[in-house]
Amino acid sequence: MLSLKDCQAVIKQHLNELQLPGLPSNLYDPMRYMFELEAKRFRPSLVLMGCNVFSDNIQPAIYAALAIEVFHNFTLMHDDIMDKSAMRRNRPTVHMKWNQNIAILSGDAMLIKAYELLAHVGGSMLNRVLPVFNQTALQVCEGQQYDMDYEQRLEVSIDDYLKMVEYKTAVLVAASLKIGALLGGAADEESNLLHEFGKNIGIAFQLQDDLLDVFADPAVFGKVTGNDIVFNKKTILLIEALNTASGNTRKNLLKWLNLTNFEREEKIAAISAIYTSLNLEQSVGSRIKRYHQMAVNSLDKLVIDPTRKSELLTFSTYLMHRKK
Amino acid sequence: MLSLKDCQAVIKQHLNELQLPGLPSNLYDPMRYMFELEAKRFRPSLVLMGCNVFSDNIQPAIYAALAIEVFHNFTLMHDDIMDKSAMRRNRPTVHMKWNQNIAILSGDAMLIKAYELLAHVGGSMLNRVLPVFNQTALQVCEGQQYDMDYEQRLEVSIDDYLKMVEYKTAVLVAASLKIGALLGGAADEESNLLHEFGKNIGIAFQLQDDLLDVFADPAVFGKVTGNDIVFNKKTILLIEALNTASGNTRKNLLKWLNLTNFEREEKIAAISAIYTSLNLEQSVGSRIKRYHQMAVNSLDKLVIDPTRKSELLTFSTYLMHRKK
Repeated sequence: MLSLKDCQAVIKQHLNELQLPGLPSNLYDPMRYMFELEAKRFRPSLVLMGCNVFSDNIQPAIYAALAIEVFHNFTLMHDDIMDKSAMRRNRPTVHMKWNQNIAILSGDAMLIKAYELLAHVGGSMLNRVLPVFNQTALQVCEGQQYDMDYEQRLEVSIDDYLKMVEYKTAVLVAASLKIGALLGGAADEESNLLHEFGKNIGIAFQLQDDLLDVFADPAVFGKVTGNDIVFNKKTILLIEALNTASGNTRKNLLKWLNLTNFEREEKIAAISAIYTSLNLEQSVGSRIKRYHQMAVNSLDKLVIDPTRKSELLTFSTYLMHRKK
Repeated sequence: MLSLKDCQAVIKQHLNELQLPGLPSNLYDPMRYMFELEAKRFRPSLVLMGCNVFSDNIQPAIYAALAIEVFHNFTLMHDDIMDKSAMRRNRPTVHMKWNQNIAILSGDAMLIKAYELLAHVGGSMLNRVLPVFNQTALQVCEGQQYDMDYEQRLEVSIDDYLKMVEYKTAVLVAASLKIGALLGGAADEESNLLHEFGKNIGIAFQLQDDLLDVFADPAVFGKVTGNDIVFNKKTILLIEALNTASGNTRKNLLKWLNLTNFEREEKIAAISAIYTSLNLEQSVGSRIKRYHQMAVNSLDKLVIDPTRKSELLTFSTYLMHRKK
């Protein structure tokens, strides 16, 4: 079976070989720029791994994998405009390096390019794969909209937050595996088990992201921690805190959230201390384990030679123990 | 045969019946708002008319027609952001009524919605229609990029301008007819003749738009004239003028283009006078007639009972003589 690393290498090679027109350069240069940023290529690799569960031939899944990766990069380009992010992977974002109009239009063209790649899935398979891609893409937009809506609200329920994470992040991981499975020849029910697996590791992944921003070891993490705290980002930690803190702890939390003038490190230390006092590292950690267990359960239900599932299990375990 | 009016009525009914989710409202309300703006629905009507040339049953073309209309509205929503347009059809544009982030994301979702509608084209036909749609959609983005690029340049060749118009406007008209034809059972070569017809009336349509902004009878036109002149918009008139004016006429033209403080009506009168002195109403008028003639020639080449083509001929003649 192909490991994550094998699949990442295949994706890297095909992305490098992706032919984009030269002109108009303001449309296509930003796309090339996005593809050249360092990235883990988890999603397209999962398309290949999903295919590989059911077939030794991953060729039929390559275009769909590229489509998923190009779609993902489209969402990054437009999200960076909406979130006013200046940097991505230590490089200026497209709307900063070029301008906002170019980031809007180049992102649009990237989304279309994703469909162009997907259209290479020929024959009747296209009729099965395209609706999955469409539904997922719309849900990703819905998730981003909920994320922006929630930033404007103080109180967000945990269920609402988890639904947002499912839509914004997890369904694309799920669809990657499902589309790969279909292209590998899986029956609908088999592909749905991989979808369920992907959805749950996708949610676990995002919750862990929230946790790492606060509790990661900076030496291992490789990125600055505490950014979510500094910008009052609605994470599972902040939402759990707002839903469970009472008395002075709540007052203290709200004071820090409303402060516009503060020392960065002081705010991070204060809110981290609140999270610790509420035992959030443990409770969110347990939540992540539950999602991981649900993912594993879905994989267990798939009736197939266990060796064919082993790489997906390895992947989910690797995600569970990641420190960065 | 179905007339334009018949097709417009069919489109209107199906657009009214289009089911969009309620939530998140910031994602779907702007879409509904766009669909409720008054519009001629030329493009989706041409999908139905293209189908009707080859088949008495237009049902197979309805979803594709809606996809084309939804795609067109996506381009309007994003173009309005890029062009900083405050009004469309006498109503505030989406980024003004809501905000820019909502206009970006709702536009993205609209583009995906277009693909969702297109996916209803089932069976092997999807493999023929989707690539046409994809290529067209990318060309529309390229056209919009060229348009923005040209706004930053003083000199644009007529050929470059015509290519921009072809991509930004004409290919979608062409693809509407071609996709309709395919869904009506046309052979590839037959559908390509309708594509050629559509491309040429599309270019003629845009050149006429440029002309009407300056030379329309305001009482009939129903919109304020002269806006292109006021904002130095690169139209076929301005480009022809920059390419042909010399001596004092050129100096005078450049003076008005560079003036930042001016009386609106005075600038319109001055530049209109330059256009008239260069005989541009006639030369652009002849150009439009040539495109119209090329369109008619393509239709002539289509070997089919002439009554099946009559409504398309009527449509092109109607466009040629429009005063608004």
